[in-house]
Amino acid sequence: MAIQRVSVWSSSAALAIATLASVVVMPVGATAQALADVKRPDTPLVLRAQGSFYVGGESVEQTQGQLGNLGPGGHITINQMYVRFMVPQGGDGNLPVVMLHGATLTGKSWETTPDGRMGWDEYFVRKGHPVYVPDQVGRGRSGFNQAVLNDVRAGVATSDKLPPWLRFSDEVVWPNFRFGSKPGEPFADTQFPVPAVGELSKQAVPDISFGLPQPNPNWKALADLAGQLTGAVLMGHSQSGSFPLEAALLNPAAAKGLVLVEPGRCPEYTADQIKTLATVPILVVFGDHRDTPTGLSTLPSWQQRFEMCQAMIGRLKAVGGRAEMLAPPDRGIKGNSHMIMQDRNHLQIADMILQWIGGNVRDK
Amino acid sequence: MAIQRVSVWSSSAALAIATLASVVVMPVGATAQALADVKRPDTPLVLRAQGSFYVGGESVEQTQGQLGNLGPGGHITINQMYVRFMVPQGGDGNLPVVMLHGATLTGKSWETTPDGRMGWDEYFVRKGHPVYVPDQVGRGRSGFNQAVLNDVRAGVATSDKLPPWLRFSDEVVWPNFRFGSKPGEPFADTQFPVPAVGELSKQAVPDISFGLPQPNPNWKALADLAGQLTGAVLMGHSQSGSFPLEAALLNPAAAKGLVLVEPGRCPEYTADQIKTLATVPILVVFGDHRDTPTGLSTLPSWQQRFEMCQAMIGRLKAVGGRAEMLAPPDRGIKGNSHMIMQDRNHLQIADMILQWIGGNVRDK
Repeated sequence: MAIQRVSVWSSSAALAIATLASVVVMPVGATAQALADVKRPDTPLVLRAQGSFYVGGESVEQTQGQLGNLGPGGHITINQMYVRFMVPQGGDGNLPVVMLHGATLTGKSWETTPDGRMGWDEYFVRKGHPVYVPDQVGRGRSGFNQAVLNDVRAGVATSDKLPPWLRFSDEVVWPNFRFGSKPGEPFADTQFPVPAVGELSKQAVPDISFGLPQPNPNWKALADLAGQLTGAVLMGHSQSGSFPLEAALLNPAAAKGLVLVEPGRCPEYTADQIKTLATVPILVVFGDHRDTPTGLSTLPSWQQRFEMCQAMIGRLKAVGGRAEMLAPPDRGIKGNSHMIMQDRNHLQIADMILQWIGGNVRDK
Repeated sequence: MAIQRVSVWSSSAALAIATLASVVVMPVGATAQALADVKRPDTPLVLRAQGSFYVGGESVEQTQGQLGNLGPGGHITINQMYVRFMVPQGGDGNLPVVMLHGATLTGKSWETTPDGRMGWDEYFVRKGHPVYVPDQVGRGRSGFNQAVLNDVRAGVATSDKLPPWLRFSDEVVWPNFRFGSKPGEPFADTQFPVPAVGELSKQAVPDISFGLPQPNPNWKALADLAGQLTGAVLMGHSQSGSFPLEAALLNPAAAKGLVLVEPGRCPEYTADQIKTLATVPILVVFGDHRDTPTGLSTLPSWQQRFEMCQAMIGRLKAVGGRAEMLAPPDRGIKGNSHMIMQDRNHLQIADMILQWIGGNVRDK
């Protein structure tokens, strides 16, 4: 596979080694004009193609009330997945990379960072990979099934039928995403661009995951997307960190490699499932400050999740799998957060992942 | 303003004059693999920059219950607007175009068409314009305020406090978007790619417009975006067809030109407002078959909306405004639908709009 070498962003190295002296904490939510903060790359982006499409979806019939009384009852589509893509010029034969976002977020996670730097979506394209960025089923441009919500409004269903709409407060994000132990008090070595934390707050949307059918339709949508691409690297983050594993179990031939970025869990798979997953190269990525108390008592700490994934890697290796952990702190790179794709050294981390892909993932 | 001339899509002309003999009606919701249907342009797309950012947003404090019990109460951001953008190489000084979508839809409306052709977003970029595509506040990647929904779930608020989540059924879309008088029976001359109507169904998301604060925060967000761009052409569609007018009233200096595509209404503005709007060049675009009964008895027909806009144009002209109607049927171009940016002759319509912009809108 021929990967283009494109000079990008000569300022990124400088950014990555910027000292904390320049970090100024701004009030949560108070930010300057975001457009003016968007930085420009040094070289043009040359695309063979770009656009968007949907994966999956089912036609269901709903009542007038379930459709919000906008018109008579009839059919709508639910459980489809929106996917935006960019294919670099000359990159048609190269390995596609699918980037799936985490809880209460959308595909925006991978686009322009909160402080206006190039996102991983464009960076991977500039490195020669076609990149596909979905919104999870039930989120963002993928929409969600509103039937039960309107049923409750109409009195046809009781309010206990409502799924919760999940949101993290900005205050919870600080320790949970490991920018610092307390809101407004960043770790001395944090890599997250904390002056722009108010812009991250804007990226959050309500998350209706508990209202999705079971099994989670994102697993099949991700597997189907990999199949339509006739093979892809599947990357998930946080909530969706384990989704590439589930997609690989559904379609191991199309899952050419898995990158689990700060996964919320590494499930305790059966021996048979581990045997299947051992046929796929797997990289797990975790940042720093993993033992920070999150303030979310019902959820495991990030260190516990890290150890859960270490255990899975051990099981995979025991049956001949190529699975490994990438923990930048072990390489002397400190301060990476849960939003590692938005950290100030995000291109340095991206390069490590690209190097792993180059060395471990077979071509399409 | 130097507008690039780029050769795009030699097949588009052929598509535009394709006979209806090739149109096969497929069952609603049943479609082939969408990715395989995505067509490729003949020439690469060369971008000076691309990415995304947010406009506006307010920090509010919410309770643990309002945040879905994911963690303790705290602050979140609401009423922000997601904006994706592409700037063509050499297009930095050119007039930006903002494209805002309609009801139950997202910015996807302007991207790859349901049958896989280039969207207006890319086409306008290829014609030299920086293009900005938002998701309306309360929709898609802009998120929405979930507080009252979780309050009802927790029993803190009663179900009559719930705003309706609006959806059009696929059956309603056929006459209301004027593909044909009845579902599955396209007009003989329809320009909409009806075999891909199932893909349009996937683009729909629940619309919580009735739950937005008043005045509609999209008006100010659109005005602020135009201001941040130091001048832009503002294009709205259907539900948002009148939003460029509202944005122009808030910031007439930044609204360099308005394009109202099949607007749901042209409001009866005061004489003072009309005087302000008369300082901005305005184009209203309406397709064919406007007197089709929509099946939505509480809403005006599209012919009635057309006449409402004709009346507004008359008032604007009476005080010296440069306002005009573009109705392709009057130029012998038949069969355009409400989703005119997705019709088979969508580039022909785009060229008419581009010609109007070139002739009527001053540079930034």
